[in-house]
Amino acid sequence: MANLPKSALLTETNMALFVDYYELTMGQADFDSSQNAVCTENYFARAIPQGAYLIAAGLEQVIHYILNLRFSEDDLAWLQSSKSIPEISPNFVDYLRNFKFDGDVYAVPEGTIVLPNEPIINITGRSIDVQLFETYLLSIMNFQTLIATKSSRIVNVSGGRICFDFGARRAHGRDAAILSARASFIGGMSATSLVIASQYFDIPYVGTLAHKFIQDRPSELGAFRDYAMSFPHNTILLIDTYDTIQGAKHAVTIGQEMRAKGQELRGVRLDSGNLLELSKQVRSILDDGDLKEAKIFASNDLDEFEIDRLLKSGAPLDGFGIGTRLATGATFNPISGNGGVSALPGVYKHVEKIKGDQTIPTFKISNDTAKSTLPARKQVQRFTDPDQYYIKDQICLWDEIDQDGLLIPIVKRGELVYDFPTLKEIQVQTQNNVSSLPDKHKTLDQPATYPVTLSQKLENLQQELINEKQSNVS
Amino acid sequence: MANLPKSALLTETNMALFVDYYELTMGQADFDSSQNAVCTENYFARAIPQGAYLIAAGLEQVIHYILNLRFSEDDLAWLQSSKSIPEISPNFVDYLRNFKFDGDVYAVPEGTIVLPNEPIINITGRSIDVQLFETYLLSIMNFQTLIATKSSRIVNVSGGRICFDFGARRAHGRDAAILSARASFIGGMSATSLVIASQYFDIPYVGTLAHKFIQDRPSELGAFRDYAMSFPHNTILLIDTYDTIQGAKHAVTIGQEMRAKGQELRGVRLDSGNLLELSKQVRSILDDGDLKEAKIFASNDLDEFEIDRLLKSGAPLDGFGIGTRLATGATFNPISGNGGVSALPGVYKHVEKIKGDQTIPTFKISNDTAKSTLPARKQVQRFTDPDQYYIKDQICLWDEIDQDGLLIPIVKRGELVYDFPTLKEIQVQTQNNVSSLPDKHKTLDQPATYPVTLSQKLENLQQELINEKQSNVS
Repeated sequence: MANLPKSALLTETNMALFVDYYELTMGQADFDSSQNAVCTENYFARAIPQGAYLIAAGLEQVIHYILNLRFSEDDLAWLQSSKSIPEISPNFVDYLRNFKFDGDVYAVPEGTIVLPNEPIINITGRSIDVQLFETYLLSIMNFQTLIATKSSRIVNVSGGRICFDFGARRAHGRDAAILSARASFIGGMSATSLVIASQYFDIPYVGTLAHKFIQDRPSELGAFRDYAMSFPHNTILLIDTYDTIQGAKHAVTIGQEMRAKGQELRGVRLDSGNLLELSKQVRSILDDGDLKEAKIFASNDLDEFEIDRLLKSGAPLDGFGIGTRLATGATFNPISGNGGVSALPGVYKHVEKIKGDQTIPTFKISNDTAKSTLPARKQVQRFTDPDQYYIKDQICLWDEIDQDGLLIPIVKRGELVYDFPTLKEIQVQTQNNVSSLPDKHKTLDQPATYPVTLSQKLENLQQELINEKQSNVS
Repeated sequence: MANLPKSALLTETNMALFVDYYELTMGQADFDSSQNAVCTENYFARAIPQGAYLIAAGLEQVIHYILNLRFSEDDLAWLQSSKSIPEISPNFVDYLRNFKFDGDVYAVPEGTIVLPNEPIINITGRSIDVQLFETYLLSIMNFQTLIATKSSRIVNVSGGRICFDFGARRAHGRDAAILSARASFIGGMSATSLVIASQYFDIPYVGTLAHKFIQDRPSELGAFRDYAMSFPHNTILLIDTYDTIQGAKHAVTIGQEMRAKGQELRGVRLDSGNLLELSKQVRSILDDGDLKEAKIFASNDLDEFEIDRLLKSGAPLDGFGIGTRLATGATFNPISGNGGVSALPGVYKHVEKIKGDQTIPTFKISNDTAKSTLPARKQVQRFTDPDQYYIKDQICLWDEIDQDGLLIPIVKRGELVYDFPTLKEIQVQTQNNVSSLPDKHKTLDQPATYPVTLSQKLENLQQELINEKQSNVS
């Protein structure tokens, strides 16, 4: 039976007015001119901000919104009382009062690898209805896809070492922190530091200690001893409050005290300084102190570039806490100094409408080719080689293939028809998908572009529409 | 009477577990070792990601959280049932059950200009209690301060032209979209496109139309006519769906039709292409069509650098919709290609503790000077010249000055003692503050660093503590 996890809810707060106002003004004008035919809108990414692939994420939250969107009487009264211009009319407010989505949603499952211009979500419904979803859908999908992709890139370079999401404090508010934990788990992080994200999404959570705990006590050694007393089986000591080398020696003292009681120090964490040099020195100190099993974890402005550099330089690190650059989806390359905007340029575009028994493809061409869109409702075929590695994709018209397209039915006539997997299942599937992508598309430095072609029929249609429009305009 | 606006709430969802787990594990260890003395934590920014000043924002949401934080029985049951490690004990769960903040908060009002290392918020309370606020406070303050600052930078270069927040679709989820609208209004944006942000915060909201509205109809001219019919006094036409020049000519037709009915076309919007060339051509077409009053608005990956370039090149633009680079707080300079992380590096650090009748300053020195902290509870003095321009700031010990420090009382013994201004009042005050900052600190290119010094007493204390720690370590 189709189900939507409770976690999809995120919060119970009514978000009906999470719309850009033009969704309502256009709705008003559509309503006034009796234009409310069934049409399809398509969510896709225009480009990849960093690297050569994207991991789609966020569908669960989007479907929850679509199926539960209702305008409360409070919302409607507020809309009518507000002084903003242009104003919307009581008859259109009645339309909103009765709103309930009864159309279709097709989408790629979360964790699917997607490329620019490939449809990720298709929504078919009345024109006024489907445009209401634009802002919410974009905000959720653009962000989670950005973060799942960033997480996957970090996991790729970490060579199986454990990676934790430590980003909440630099995420852009609460939703960003919680959804970043979710999306980064999809991308392959092992756990999060953010407890509420675990409460919502059943993600493992972890915690060690902060500098405050040490500053708050007369000596570092005493602070370590207090912490170890409380957590005899799970102590990871933060050793850089005053002097990392001295901190490592204190950790050895504590590790030996714990061993005498039949306990074991799990490891230490470095959070500042030259992580390469310090990790080597700390490893020696731990080894010399007969604590070969104690792990060294690192944090401090890490990302895929820094982790790759540290590991290739031989840093003896066993795990990473990744914060700011994960939770903000940083597109900054700290080695080259080049950067871009921390956002996925995903858009939600009108691609076809039904007029009587005709399906009319629509598109945008404009002066700026980067902002043009492919016409018509579309599907994606993914081709694999005999070893199941991905070779290439083809974007085709919706009806060109009978089955095996990447987009699958999620909602039909307003009813959920999809069994959402658990987040852990999505994580495992994502790992399989990333493994199927050849390595040349996953390198940090100049990854190969994954080939995406248009089917002949789609290309023909596009050219036909451009010619037609140009002859109309001229 | 002290008040906290309803809008501070944001959502009613319980956010007690919006903590990094180490806040609870440290709490457990503090509890086990009976270490719960009163101490002060200080929120400050380590650096400015872009430009030479910051606009503090987010206090309203932080105070709401602090005053309302309670652990529900559901939260506590979940914490005890969850399998995460290390586990917390039933006796500490009882402590959390009874948690209610009863300490003091001092802070700079929202809209205050702040500089690196200056205290923005000081929270004094029991050690276990004040550390619970870290993640929420950082997530909210770091983000809103980043966005208010970005907004102010954009408004500075816009020369009084109207600026709109259009960023929700690229913001990092719902909170980011809503709080970005709030913070960008503080920084000087005139309005937002996001309706729910208006519903929460009483920000003016605006909307025009999307390409879809035009694509959905047989002709652009017909689409414009439909829209103008619905909004005879507030029509701004999007003219770049197919061909901007042709779109401008269609706008003239509509403008003249409207005039014949005693109405007026408000303007047009450009959303793609070469905005400099197109705006000049469109201005000519509108003027030649006797529509000199019709405004030209622009959107499309704008930020302070692009707007500055367009205006200095003579683009006849009357207003700007700013999206992605505002709502993500982009630190990317599109002209140089240099970028950084879209996050304010704000931290929440332990600066002093009370032991018996002694106040003991604490600090972090470590190997990494960028991560060192200034000891003790601190206040900031701002010096102005006879024209009320800001000259310099001095960070001093809390008791060094009697009055006129930037930090003012917000909460005392757990009770709110501050009248929160309205958001509009904050916006006006922010504008006054930014006007008081000399222009040399506001240039896009190499702004002058605003001078911030430490008082002699603070410097002496810092040196004393470093010496003391070094003699202890060696």
